[in-house]
Amino acid sequence: MESNNQWIETMPFWEKLSETQQNMLIKASIVESFNKGRILNRTDEECKGMIILKSGQIRVYMLSDEGREVTLYRLHKGDICVLSASCLLDSITFDVVIEVVEGAETILVPSGILHQVIEQNPYMELFLQRQANERFSDVMWTMQQLLFMRMDRRVAIFLWDEISTTKQNILAYTHDEVARFIGSAREVVTRVLKYFVQEGVLKLSRGKIEIIDKDKLKSYL
Amino acid sequence: MESNNQWIETMPFWEKLSETQQNMLIKASIVESFNKGRILNRTDEECKGMIILKSGQIRVYMLSDEGREVTLYRLHKGDICVLSASCLLDSITFDVVIEVVEGAETILVPSGILHQVIEQNPYMELFLQRQANERFSDVMWTMQQLLFMRMDRRVAIFLWDEISTTKQNILAYTHDEVARFIGSAREVVTRVLKYFVQEGVLKLSRGKIEIIDKDKLKSYL
Repeated sequence: MESNNQWIETMPFWEKLSETQQNMLIKASIVESFNKGRILNRTDEECKGMIILKSGQIRVYMLSDEGREVTLYRLHKGDICVLSASCLLDSITFDVVIEVVEGAETILVPSGILHQVIEQNPYMELFLQRQANERFSDVMWTMQQLLFMRMDRRVAIFLWDEISTTKQNILAYTHDEVARFIGSAREVVTRVLKYFVQEGVLKLSRGKIEIIDKDKLKSYL
Repeated sequence: MESNNQWIETMPFWEKLSETQQNMLIKASIVESFNKGRILNRTDEECKGMIILKSGQIRVYMLSDEGREVTLYRLHKGDICVLSASCLLDSITFDVVIEVVEGAETILVPSGILHQVIEQNPYMELFLQRQANERFSDVMWTMQQLLFMRMDRRVAIFLWDEISTTKQNILAYTHDEVARFIGSAREVVTRVLKYFVQEGVLKLSRGKIEIIDKDKLKSYL
């Protein structure tokens, strides 16, 4: 069986901790499994701690008063969720919803023990702050998409036109070709296409784009 | 004359630095003055360093390909701008424009010296990461406004209707009253009104809201 320690010990802050601090974290860490749909930061279990994702997928989103959702970013195998420990980071003063979207196996390093190590060793908090700022960068990208670049929409319109014209769900285009058709850069198109893959809109393979959820694609038009 | 040291030495990380490190920062720090309209992160002077704002106002905004701007947050006297040192923070991977909107006197702690101290002392980077995450929180609030709460719009519509009906630029309403009229919380209305003050739309005094830029107010409708 794969050891939890392997997951924790490979983190960049690990070597900066004392042996005592390392043992504190290892002893306190808990393996948890969650089904699809589970919300990880419900009021009755707020500020769980740092969550290491061993498998599955987590989606972090904002929720409006009227119940509208905006996906901020997604976490996959090996990623670390720190907003579930935001009570430890005074600089983070907003709320998000953390939802399991694919059955997830996780290692939780509880807030209580993190707090103790943070008090003793600046590298522990430094790691959490860095992680949070990486998510800040993700959110800025999302925001740019939503507010004005709307490259997702331009790519979606192109794909929609193509499948409507060809009556095919599989399009034989490279990212480069799509970029030239819509007058954008390949890097941007690649990022949007990967986003669509995550959202379950399409599948990518060498030189091919397969639309697997037409309704969802339509929602981006 | 007020000493720069007073500004730097009151920062929370100061006592965590060695005397040598403290002297490095003080010696390297530079007083600079900027006129309104100056962009602080132009390509020819990228990654200046950490900027301490002694007076004036700085606006940080995102810019679309088509030139549309979205204000992310504003900095005032005593605030610290760290995105002007984002090259030192690997976790920050986005670009913003940093603009002086009111003649500003600043203390610059240049990236080069910050980098040296970061290499030696984790508290230096911890301070910068924390600052960046505070801005993350500001951006999340802005995003929520822009994407779905749109409380700014609801408040603007209310104010617009009132000045149109009464033919007055001064409205005798408390924040509480505005909140009840538009069906929101007083805290939210206060935040929006303060935002409008910063944007130069209105002035606030006890129980009064004075619209000073009707065109700008209209742009929120």
